[in-house]
Amino acid sequence: MNAAELHKDSIVIDGLIIAKWNRELFEDMKKGGLTAANCTVSIWEGFQNTVNNIVEMNQLITENSDLLRPVHSTRDILRAKEEGKTGIIYGFQNAHAYEDKIGYVEVFKKLGVGIVQMCYNTQNLVGTGCYERDGGLSGFGREIVAEMNRVGVMCDLSHVGSKTSEEVILESKKPVCYSHCLPSGLKDHPRNKSDEELKFIADHGGFIGVTMFAPFLKNGIDSTIDDYAEAIEYVVNIAGIDQVGIGTDFTQGHDQAFFEMLTHDKGYARRLTRFGKIINPAGIRTVGEFGNLTETLLRRGFDEASVRKIMGENWVRVLGDVWGE
Amino acid sequence: MNAAELHKDSIVIDGLIIAKWNRELFEDMKKGGLTAANCTVSIWEGFQNTVNNIVEMNQLITENSDLLRPVHSTRDILRAKEEGKTGIIYGFQNAHAYEDKIGYVEVFKKLGVGIVQMCYNTQNLVGTGCYERDGGLSGFGREIVAEMNRVGVMCDLSHVGSKTSEEVILESKKPVCYSHCLPSGLKDHPRNKSDEELKFIADHGGFIGVTMFAPFLKNGIDSTIDDYAEAIEYVVNIAGIDQVGIGTDFTQGHDQAFFEMLTHDKGYARRLTRFGKIINPAGIRTVGEFGNLTETLLRRGFDEASVRKIMGENWVRVLGDVWGE
Repeated sequence: MNAAELHKDSIVIDGLIIAKWNRELFEDMKKGGLTAANCTVSIWEGFQNTVNNIVEMNQLITENSDLLRPVHSTRDILRAKEEGKTGIIYGFQNAHAYEDKIGYVEVFKKLGVGIVQMCYNTQNLVGTGCYERDGGLSGFGREIVAEMNRVGVMCDLSHVGSKTSEEVILESKKPVCYSHCLPSGLKDHPRNKSDEELKFIADHGGFIGVTMFAPFLKNGIDSTIDDYAEAIEYVVNIAGIDQVGIGTDFTQGHDQAFFEMLTHDKGYARRLTRFGKIINPAGIRTVGEFGNLTETLLRRGFDEASVRKIMGENWVRVLGDVWGE
Repeated sequence: MNAAELHKDSIVIDGLIIAKWNRELFEDMKKGGLTAANCTVSIWEGFQNTVNNIVEMNQLITENSDLLRPVHSTRDILRAKEEGKTGIIYGFQNAHAYEDKIGYVEVFKKLGVGIVQMCYNTQNLVGTGCYERDGGLSGFGREIVAEMNRVGVMCDLSHVGSKTSEEVILESKKPVCYSHCLPSGLKDHPRNKSDEELKFIADHGGFIGVTMFAPFLKNGIDSTIDDYAEAIEYVVNIAGIDQVGIGTDFTQGHDQAFFEMLTHDKGYARRLTRFGKIINPAGIRTVGEFGNLTETLLRRGFDEASVRKIMGENWVRVLGDVWGE
């Protein structure tokens, strides 16, 4: 099987996309052969504005049902593959939308939210993000983790502080993930994870989606798809071939105002970081080029079975473990 | 001047009341000679439910305007004294009602909210309360302190964790307070403050209101008004005569369900503590008996000027410093 055939035959999962949701993107998802993607529907929003985001996204899925289908279980991912559509998993990048109500975990699960990052960059009721001093998982946070375990929502730790992350990993009775991260062994950055952190989550049955967000890659905006593949290899060498997948962090279609919102606490308060110019690695600048990643991994020596695991099979397995279906 | 005359002539401020708001209580406030009180209008509530509480309280003040007047400045406190009414200061026991919006500080100030406790027992966006591990003041918390300074809202630290408290004391450019606390030198309890903590806030220009909440007093529910006076003396010996006042924590009129709400995180989640039976110290079981405190302080050797300071003049001065009017 050549690279193109393998890509077409594989289940391809993107563990994190936060693009501008529109038909142009959905067409690009099809072009890229995406079977399913964890699509961010909440960052700084509270409960009601997050429900509003979901209502808008539901409408988009309905309007583009020739390209998309909603995902509530791993069966839905397999159906998407059969139908040649892209399955949309709803995810939060911040547990803030749960507000102070444990019962909202189940409410949002029923609306399709299957992956939730505990904190986004700063402190919330659950714990603290990776851009400020981190006091660890709160008592309320432990209750939220237990409820996410019970209801079947995966805990994501990508933008979470080191101490809170460690405590969520220990607290959760189901696998947790860094849905989109890079190793600090290749570039030191507050958002990147150390070898010890990557080993810790893997040793506790957790999962790592590798991102290609240029500011966190060794070669920054001069990176190519080979820099991305190098990072994947680096993480596989630490975590093994079964606990690694893709989580691109594609921001396709967004303007500068969107990044200003991301990089300020609560979307408007003090500045937390500056990304500078964002250009995805050459070879995978757009979602539609996803096939090049299969080709690159094959070219760099991964066997076919390993490529299938990295490109999506691992994600499907671990999501099944957490979701229970 | 005998004790009764002195009490009648004094400005009497209660730095914290969280009673059941009704005419019976307001009549008792008059009987007790209360010039003004910091009345809790938010504990676990978010923005809108707190506004609703304020709307209800506004209605009560209107309906009982023969007994009450709203307080927006220290001038209003002096007017209340002249009119023989009790001035109602709105206060929060939790900055949670500010939610994630710095601009809500000013919104609530315009509605009469002049004293806000940064955290109630557990972690919020600002910092952490005294009933769980405390990671300190968050970056957002520093922004909230700055806005409270700018707008003129006093930071209250009674139920706040030790580390967050210390950092708010250092961060704030205006005096902050423990509006209602007891010294752990007389009884060790997570809610009580050590000699070092009391000295630290006083050395930084802060203020201490002494509570009489029985579970935190040395003799518990067997306490008398003399145990309360002993605690006041203890705090005066550490902080000096000018930085100490009253903050009873009267819960008059509330039922068991109310205390269950207080003692569970967010009002419903895990249990944080148990108060057991609550009986206020003999001699000051009700708001109407406030005059006995003036008598007790005189009897125990405080001179008239010192009693006036403790009973209310100190509070008026420090509130003026924070509010700017």
